[in-house]
Amino acid sequence: MDGHGRTTLTGTDANRRARERFVDRLEQAGLDVRIDAVGNIVGRWVPEGVDPSTAPVATGSHLDSVPVGGIFDGPLGVYGGLEAVRAIQESDRTPERPIDVVCFTEEEGQRFGNGLLGSSVATGQRSVDDALAFEADDGTTLADALDEIGFRGEGRIDAAEWDAWLELHPEQGTRLEEENATAGIVTNVTGITHCYLEVNGEADHAGSTPMPGRADALAAASEVVLDVEEAAKQLVDDESPSAVGTVGKAVVEPNATNVIPGQVRLGIDIRDVSADSISMLVDALEDSAQRVERERAVETTVSRPYDVPPEPMADRCRETLVDAGTATGLNTLLMHSGAAHDTMNVARVTDAGLLFAPSRDGISHNPREWTEWSDCAGATTVLAEGLARLAES
Amino acid sequence: MDGHGRTTLTGTDANRRARERFVDRLEQAGLDVRIDAVGNIVGRWVPEGVDPSTAPVATGSHLDSVPVGGIFDGPLGVYGGLEAVRAIQESDRTPERPIDVVCFTEEEGQRFGNGLLGSSVATGQRSVDDALAFEADDGTTLADALDEIGFRGEGRIDAAEWDAWLELHPEQGTRLEEENATAGIVTNVTGITHCYLEVNGEADHAGSTPMPGRADALAAASEVVLDVEEAAKQLVDDESPSAVGTVGKAVVEPNATNVIPGQVRLGIDIRDVSADSISMLVDALEDSAQRVERERAVETTVSRPYDVPPEPMADRCRETLVDAGTATGLNTLLMHSGAAHDTMNVARVTDAGLLFAPSRDGISHNPREWTEWSDCAGATTVLAEGLARLAES
Repeated sequence: MDGHGRTTLTGTDANRRARERFVDRLEQAGLDVRIDAVGNIVGRWVPEGVDPSTAPVATGSHLDSVPVGGIFDGPLGVYGGLEAVRAIQESDRTPERPIDVVCFTEEEGQRFGNGLLGSSVATGQRSVDDALAFEADDGTTLADALDEIGFRGEGRIDAAEWDAWLELHPEQGTRLEEENATAGIVTNVTGITHCYLEVNGEADHAGSTPMPGRADALAAASEVVLDVEEAAKQLVDDESPSAVGTVGKAVVEPNATNVIPGQVRLGIDIRDVSADSISMLVDALEDSAQRVERERAVETTVSRPYDVPPEPMADRCRETLVDAGTATGLNTLLMHSGAAHDTMNVARVTDAGLLFAPSRDGISHNPREWTEWSDCAGATTVLAEGLARLAES
Repeated sequence: MDGHGRTTLTGTDANRRARERFVDRLEQAGLDVRIDAVGNIVGRWVPEGVDPSTAPVATGSHLDSVPVGGIFDGPLGVYGGLEAVRAIQESDRTPERPIDVVCFTEEEGQRFGNGLLGSSVATGQRSVDDALAFEADDGTTLADALDEIGFRGEGRIDAAEWDAWLELHPEQGTRLEEENATAGIVTNVTGITHCYLEVNGEADHAGSTPMPGRADALAAASEVVLDVEEAAKQLVDDESPSAVGTVGKAVVEPNATNVIPGQVRLGIDIRDVSADSISMLVDALEDSAQRVERERAVETTVSRPYDVPPEPMADRCRETLVDAGTATGLNTLLMHSGAAHDTMNVARVTDAGLLFAPSRDGISHNPREWTEWSDCAGATTVLAEGLARLAES
């Protein structure tokens, strides 16, 4: 296998080792460590002379991964945050607020099926009890899994108490690489809608069923796949370059070469920074489904079970990061984020900003994920400058 | 469950009981039973005064089924054949040849993965040893499975020794029902080609990969699905009403709603009574694959691992069945067969004919498969008259 693979599912032994190492490093840097009831980890640095009850600025990301993911997605923001604090400690800056370095639990949603889990609890969108009751495929609850690795703490870290939040994360795209920029400053996190389309036709013998009168669910679904793609391309050309529409999943029944498909279920992912664009693409999907229903002997149903609105980043955080780029002489770029991050949750309860480091070829969730060490350092420098400025105000 | 389900996979206890019952019935009707090395069963009736070494006429079908199939697919032709012989025995006809009633092993290919298995051995297309070595998913060989149920006999039944062959089978389509006919007389068995298309694009994050520059394997494959359908419809309109082209199978990787599909593999089934039509549809598939390769950043490969040419039925058998319909006053229809049957193999070594009984709504390989008992009787009457006429010449 090429690259550097990493599998750190929540509550596994690998996850325990990653967490223990992080706690050690926090303590070595003189931070006070707290673990909350869902396993979120916070290390707090209270600079000399600062009232510990002042609202802190916070930074961080996650240490869990997808199966055989890369080494930067998550750890870059966690260790970048710690390095930023160490840099501020060693500088002559005079922060007036504590700085928290955070690791959220189960950002990837790979073991307990719900991404952004730790931040959803820290922002009050989900209760501790609901989160602890989530089950992995093997029946293990999050509570058991955290007990198992010694990371089920007490209470709830409350993101609303933070004065501001910044997260550093790999871009998972190629814009920074193309523009030769060291860091991307996010203006908006796109909204995400998942729709499911079920197409029901009639499974029949591929040999003895003549072409006229067939109800081929796969042919019907293929029209919808192309309609969704076309609608997204049109929207990109006309109004919103950041719009994307993807049919990522198709399940065919009975899925045998010699049987006309009787049913196809499609999973459709729609994202944009504008809620209007998302609505337009959902409309395009529904129109397409209705059209194939009229033109072919199939029935269709569209559902929309997952719907997260676009989240703009706080002006204050965005501007501070832009100024930090200028002050450090590093090349930054304003951009949107097409992926969801814990910052999306945090932005609902306090001022939040998101900073991207370049990803080689945009490869993500893959051992070939790579960010040059010089870019890690550059983006972390911008993060440190931004954190220092936020903590000084 | 509606209907009458039947699961009789080769070498199972259900298959043993079906075979033992058939052997009993053959013996009750005075036929001499022989089992060959691959489990094919033949009952031979030598009419009084007929030289036993005269080339016989033969009829039959199969007793194995798909999982939870219907009760007619196979048994209709086996017991229809036996009933035809009993009817001739009780009539004042004077056949001049022996009549064989045959059950071929593993027509459906459900347990040992190769359909038309028994007839392929009886027609010399596959050796006994090769057939016996085929393995089920659980590692059981055909040899073991036949030993297990006491149906591994000796030698090889040789279809080339038959003067002529007729098979009665449910239509698995709706033409007879639509035309209110009692029996269909097959002119041609369609050729069958299976092609596989692999489309390789680039799996990417559905959120952070902009629409321009994507290499979406599912969108590309969807174009091919629609091109194959369109080419088959065009061929039906212009030249060959019996042509069919079906994309029955689609396997998407990684098949996650939030990931752009990186690979799609399609299984394509192409059939017609004309080899030219089949070639035209394979060409259309290849053209489509080349077009999406030009227009999108994907690579495609087409393979054609399964290719059975169209098989015309013998003039003599077809004409005899037409005359039998007229003589019995039953309404028959000339038609092609879109499905493969053991007759397709037998036709390569002797004169062969194929007769269809109506299938309600064309439903096949399903417990709801149904042929009215009056239609079973009518079609068997045509079969008996046809067999008698062939045996008298």
